[in-house]
Amino acid sequence: MNNFQSVPAQQEGVFNAAPALNPPPNLATKDYKLNHLAIRITDPARSLHFYIDLLGMRIIFTMNAGPFTIYYLGHPPASQSEEEIHDWAQRTSEIPTMTKTAGLLELYHTHGAESSAGIATGNEPPSLGFSHLGFTVPDVPAAVERLRENGVRILKDVGVCSRETVPLSEWEAERGIGRGEIHENYAWFFEKFAMVADPVS
Amino acid sequence: MNNFQSVPAQQEGVFNAAPALNPPPNLATKDYKLNHLAIRITDPARSLHFYIDLLGMRIIFTMNAGPFTIYYLGHPPASQSEEEIHDWAQRTSEIPTMTKTAGLLELYHTHGAESSAGIATGNEPPSLGFSHLGFTVPDVPAAVERLRENGVRILKDVGVCSRETVPLSEWEAERGIGRGEIHENYAWFFEKFAMVADPVS
Repeated sequence: MNNFQSVPAQQEGVFNAAPALNPPPNLATKDYKLNHLAIRITDPARSLHFYIDLLGMRIIFTMNAGPFTIYYLGHPPASQSEEEIHDWAQRTSEIPTMTKTAGLLELYHTHGAESSAGIATGNEPPSLGFSHLGFTVPDVPAAVERLRENGVRILKDVGVCSRETVPLSEWEAERGIGRGEIHENYAWFFEKFAMVADPVS
Repeated sequence: MNNFQSVPAQQEGVFNAAPALNPPPNLATKDYKLNHLAIRITDPARSLHFYIDLLGMRIIFTMNAGPFTIYYLGHPPASQSEEEIHDWAQRTSEIPTMTKTAGLLELYHTHGAESSAGIATGNEPPSLGFSHLGFTVPDVPAAVERLRENGVRILKDVGVCSRETVPLSEWEAERGIGRGEIHENYAWFFEKFAMVADPVS
């Protein structure tokens, strides 16, 4: 069963909501959920500071498996007391709840990785792959300002949409990939968000 | 403000739920949410087949920005009709709803990338970084069987916890990183899930 033998090029500059590309529901994938994503880290202190102190996540559980330790993070519901956050983490760590929770982040620390060749972001050619995590916040300029004050590298600020800040590289352009101007309708979105560097990148 | 000047090593083999590492709530990050992650793709037909037909996601919106097209995917609520899925996608594509929704996946297709050097998974040394997406499903063996029947490469099946299938490499071992045996308490978890290859990897 393949509903995507081919995919027509999407019309340039058009925000195509609920596209006709979507196939009908399929019982075979009922209750499938995108639960988490996992990234490697080299310094738990630096990464936990970034994702917890600066981006508001909390640890649901940790586990030292021997050669590595994993830290599972999620965003607790807003307006909770310290005790309620503890209860939320405890409850979410239980398998029936955890497997039904979306938006989790697994930080994977291989013991001794501090001395490795560092972390590949997926954004450096020719090894392009993973692009970014997307966080939503109530006030983007305020969030950027706070991150900047805390020493986070700002890759692209709000209101900016220069060609250099879009995730397209000279390496790609030289190969005839991803050339051309950014459509103004996409620029409208792009200017609304900022891009900042994870501390291990 | 840094609550993580140092992080003590976690006790081996212990599932540490709601750890005392968590700091108290902070109003500065109220309502922050991990909304989506973005990965590059080279072939929309192949990736949409994988994430939609095989893993149950649906497209919320697409946008061709000129040099690239993005496809935003999410899992619709279960037990919905085709019309209800359309309405869910339409509703979720609106900014106030989209920014409050977790578990979204952005597929980023740079036009012409079909001829590029391919996609870096983040799992090949020395460029280690991104690790995986984690999907939860009601029946893991049934899901693996269906993926296998559809030509997906199974990297690790349910019930397996050999050293070779854990995301640790010889490259790391040679550098003294991530050595040692997997603790049996982690193996208990590890055997419950399977690992499969994204079609562009």
